[in-house]
Amino acid sequence: MEPKSATLWDRSRQAVVAEIVDTALALFAEKGYEATTMAEIASRAGVSPRSLFRYFGSKEDIVCGDQDNLGELLRASVEAQPPEVTSWDALKAGFVAIASAGCSPRRVLEINTLIFTSSPLHARYLEKRLKWQRSLVPVIERRMAIESTEEPDPRAVAVIATVFACVDAASELWVRRGGDADPYALYDQMLAAVRG
Amino acid sequence: MEPKSATLWDRSRQAVVAEIVDTALALFAEKGYEATTMAEIASRAGVSPRSLFRYFGSKEDIVCGDQDNLGELLRASVEAQPPEVTSWDALKAGFVAIASAGCSPRRVLEINTLIFTSSPLHARYLEKRLKWQRSLVPVIERRMAIESTEEPDPRAVAVIATVFACVDAASELWVRRGGDADPYALYDQMLAAVRG
Repeated sequence: MEPKSATLWDRSRQAVVAEIVDTALALFAEKGYEATTMAEIASRAGVSPRSLFRYFGSKEDIVCGDQDNLGELLRASVEAQPPEVTSWDALKAGFVAIASAGCSPRRVLEINTLIFTSSPLHARYLEKRLKWQRSLVPVIERRMAIESTEEPDPRAVAVIATVFACVDAASELWVRRGGDADPYALYDQMLAAVRG
Repeated sequence: MEPKSATLWDRSRQAVVAEIVDTALALFAEKGYEATTMAEIASRAGVSPRSLFRYFGSKEDIVCGDQDNLGELLRASVEAQPPEVTSWDALKAGFVAIASAGCSPRRVLEINTLIFTSSPLHARYLEKRLKWQRSLVPVIERRMAIESTEEPDPRAVAVIATVFACVDAASELWVRRGGDADPYALYDQMLAAVRG
């Protein structure tokens, strides 16, 4: 019976987390991100402040929290590409994989709008992304047939940093247009401008 | 007499600012960035806490404060490149101009080491850099012969984002090697890997 009850617990935890995120996003949309407090989120979601802090350490975590899992999914997806796929295409395939993971496009747009319009959130998001970038270095070094050493190879670092810079820039333009654009077309246009 | 006394005041202000930055960097090196308080910096520099806050709103500002001026110098330097220079070369020339502005290479290494090893500082630095990137968009649009509209052009955004990503990645590797590397050679190697 152990695994079954663990699954049930997992599912109820996921439901609570989803409920809190929904409530918080609704409050952010009503009052603005900065003006909303953790106490208000707890009260509206019907959980104690203590429970809320057990699930999310901060307001920023409610928006950016799932980024850790997404980073791991990105790394695994890039790694899973066949060896003949270039680093550029493998990284793009990784981002396609995480874009369709878990959230509806509408939710992704809501979260991205918050991130790109609040400086502290944007900064926290960029910090998380730097962790993702570091975790991809050995994966891209292998794909570029570069021997891995203790120090990251400048070429692998540069390819990863460029893909992230273009993904973020495409997401920001997508948000700016209120979701009324194809983010993949924007990304392709950007990468073409860079790679010449 | 007005301009002369203004200049004198300016120079004494600059001397105080330089003294505070020196003192703060010495304390950060001794005790670590997180553990050092504004009160300790004021006391060691021989100024009142109130004066210190007049010059710098936060500890982060002591390290990143001058970034606003540097951003303006970068923009002006890129803009001043002759029209036949490509966007890539103009942006690099801009970064060469600000690298040799004001600080000794040793001081630049000290500041970059702090930035790349402290998460809150790194986040604040990235926020400032995003502002620099935005201010460069019309400059690069002109150089790429793109008509400027209200919305930033994806190609101009992408070229700027890529140069910044590679400059930051090169700076981080330079810091990691304790300054024992040529950051320009690292940057060139990175851009070559990206542009193929």
